Amino acid sequence: MEKLTNSGRRQMLISTGSIAAMAGLAGVARADLGKPDPGAGGTAPKSLPSYASWKDADSMIVHSANTIETKRTAFGSSVITPTNRLFVRNNVAPPTDASMMKEPDSWTLEVSGVAKPRSFTVAELKTLGLAAVPMVLQCSGNGRAWFPHKPSGTQWTVGAAGCVVFTGVPVKALLEAVGGMSEGMVYMTSTGGEPIPQGLDPNTIRVERSVPISAIEDAILAWEINGEALPLAHGGPLRIIVPGYTGVNSIKYIKQLAFTKEQSPAKIQQTSYRWTAVGEKPSPKDESIWELPVKSWINFPSDPEQTVAAGRVQISGIAMGGMTAAKSIEVSVNGGKDWQKAEFVGPDLGKYAWREFVFSADLAAGTHELACRATNEAGDTQPEARRENNRGYINNSWRDHMVSIKVA
Amino acid sequence: MEKLTNSGRRQMLISTGSIAAMAGLAGVARADLGKPDPGAGGTAPKSLPSYASWKDADSMIVHSANTIETKRTAFGSSVITPTNRLFVRNNVAPPTDASMMKEPDSWTLEVSGVAKPRSFTVAELKTLGLAAVPMVLQCSGNGRAWFPHKPSGTQWTVGAAGCVVFTGVPVKALLEAVGGMSEGMVYMTSTGGEPIPQGLDPNTIRVERSVPISAIEDAILAWEINGEALPLAHGGPLRIIVPGYTGVNSIKYIKQLAFTKEQSPAKIQQTSYRWTAVGEKPSPKDESIWELPVKSWINFPSDPEQTVAAGRVQISGIAMGGMTAAKSIEVSVNGGKDWQKAEFVGPDLGKYAWREFVFSADLAAGTHELACRATNEAGDTQPEARRENNRGYINNSWRDHMVSIKVA
Repeated sequence: MEKLTNSGRRQMLISTGSIAAMAGLAGVARADLGKPDPGAGGTAPKSLPSYASWKDADSMIVHSANTIETKRTAFGSSVITPTNRLFVRNNVAPPTDASMMKEPDSWTLEVSGVAKPRSFTVAELKTLGLAAVPMVLQCSGNGRAWFPHKPSGTQWTVGAAGCVVFTGVPVKALLEAVGGMSEGMVYMTSTGGEPIPQGLDPNTIRVERSVPISAIEDAILAWEINGEALPLAHGGPLRIIVPGYTGVNSIKYIKQLAFTKEQSPAKIQQTSYRWTAVGEKPSPKDESIWELPVKSWINFPSDPEQTVAAGRVQISGIAMGGMTAAKSIEVSVNGGKDWQKAEFVGPDLGKYAWREFVFSADLAAGTHELACRATNEAGDTQPEARRENNRGYINNSWRDHMVSIKVA
Repeated sequence: MEKLTNSGRRQMLISTGSIAAMAGLAGVARADLGKPDPGAGGTAPKSLPSYASWKDADSMIVHSANTIETKRTAFGSSVITPTNRLFVRNNVAPPTDASMMKEPDSWTLEVSGVAKPRSFTVAELKTLGLAAVPMVLQCSGNGRAWFPHKPSGTQWTVGAAGCVVFTGVPVKALLEAVGGMSEGMVYMTSTGGEPIPQGLDPNTIRVERSVPISAIEDAILAWEINGEALPLAHGGPLRIIVPGYTGVNSIKYIKQLAFTKEQSPAKIQQTSYRWTAVGEKPSPKDESIWELPVKSWINFPSDPEQTVAAGRVQISGIAMGGMTAAKSIEVSVNGGKDWQKAEFVGPDLGKYAWREFVFSADLAAGTHELACRATNEAGDTQPEARRENNRGYINNSWRDHMVSIKVA
């Protein structure tokens, strides 16, 4: 088990308990509040929560019951991230209604802000169209561990990301079935099916996100991931998938899809997930965390415990473009002083997926600082410095993602 | 659990036992001999053998310990077949040396028929190059269940196939490291690491296959499947992957890779896997079973137990081209009388992968015969009739793959 990167801070363990228990915990139910757990000491590795017990434990870092990271050494080189190694990040504990996963085709979605508002069962959605979208699913906070001001929230390094294939119905096909959007709508607003404890202001707890209406182009309502029915841990029975956007925008167990003139009034939209300056209070005036930027990192070698044999070393990793495809990738074996082009290998799964890359280097005994930086089709190159922000979102600094390896 | 399709015939259960046990079973150790098991009656579903116990039992049909099929309803629509749903087919029981999977990087491969013959550990192979190849892995006997003369062997319908990503080193990169092939070589011959029981003629049991030298273009030596270390059940620690060829040519636990002037003298090369006429004795003069042809089938709806709601029905399935990409796909909802173009959906993973397709039809109450037929880039269209052969190899008849569905 790797050491938890969450040094000096512990996440609240949110169990998938009853609504009553949730009500009691509601104030701290957002796993990213990062408040210390007064009842627990020690730093022993946590075990997988029951709803994700089918994950490959050896590949995962369990930060809390709602935040589970893929180890950097567990990504493999096959482009697709196996579902049993994919990270989990829930804003509140997942619903515990067992029937919803037993009869996923009966799950219903309300559609509004359209010419003919109505509800659809998943079974009905399955008659409207089919799309399979390979894409990077990445948490807004992936890379938070490297922000020097130690933002609250899970201290993810690289493993709150994966490249998977979601399968479902295009939102555009759904819109066709409801006579199109109502006039003047600016946002697509999705609401999760998490139960709202009685007596709480729903806006403080509701998982509801709005994205610009342009996202309908590639968005789908998914019931499948990597060839399997979408499990609860990843938002089954039905999840909206907004390719190119950070994970929080792809709402799990979606119950309502609304085309709206305003952004959601929920706290998770209004003040969370904003580009707020360090030390400032988050405000709806701050830019929202939506689109992913160009990014890359090395997966092999990356294990600080491992010594690599001197001589020819094959360096490999992944590169993604964000809203456009990754176009090229460079590697440095001396901490970013000199850069050389690396090669993409394996299939190109389209602009929202990541690419595998490989670079062969002759490395002598000693310590080497390996870095990589990607450039996308829009011409953006991964920057050396992260974009500072209060909550530690969207870190794509190549320097932060460097690995130091021992060669002997 | 679906009914076993292996009607009227039972497969010998080969356990992953000791060499001594194997020697005792050697005469029937090839799972495709199809001899009745004199000690067993009934037709109860068999359970997964220990080396494949991690498979998703609900998705599999266990014909025998060495022949495990994916259910037609378990393919999903995400192009990639999850490893825990991928079929298994071993010609003899897999090796049981536990150390080989504990230290996969120490597994060695002998390379001969090259300028500088030598052996490589997997760790060494990992420094030579990297490729990730999406491809259909398909057993030569997939579709055998529909041959009217009831060939011996496992009665596969569609599930001895999957589309996966294998990752490893290109054979061409390996050849570069050994100074190239010796002169005049015509075949690439791979030998599996299965133990050969003492006192037996190795050629009767050895899993060794030769393919035309042209296969080096795209062949790789793989240590990973779908992002995970290649498990024993699929040929780990190291398997040669010959894209476009039937599964038997991609030798598991490969110990020797030889470039040769002649085909292997092993029985599995000389007389098995040949296009032998029905009722004839197999001969080395018969054409070898190598390349896969164009093929497609419908996965949804395909469950004969299920009644589909009348109205708009989304018909989906997969299409593969064989040695060239699938170019187009047609669907018939009246048993092949009329055909209409269907649409490919999801990512194009290259010529050796399959494509997902979808077709929307309005179906009234009643029984409907659904068929599909693919055409590849070479211009080959999937035929109505299978190519008859003694052992029931390579069935790509669209009529055999039709499904009859109930609509109400």
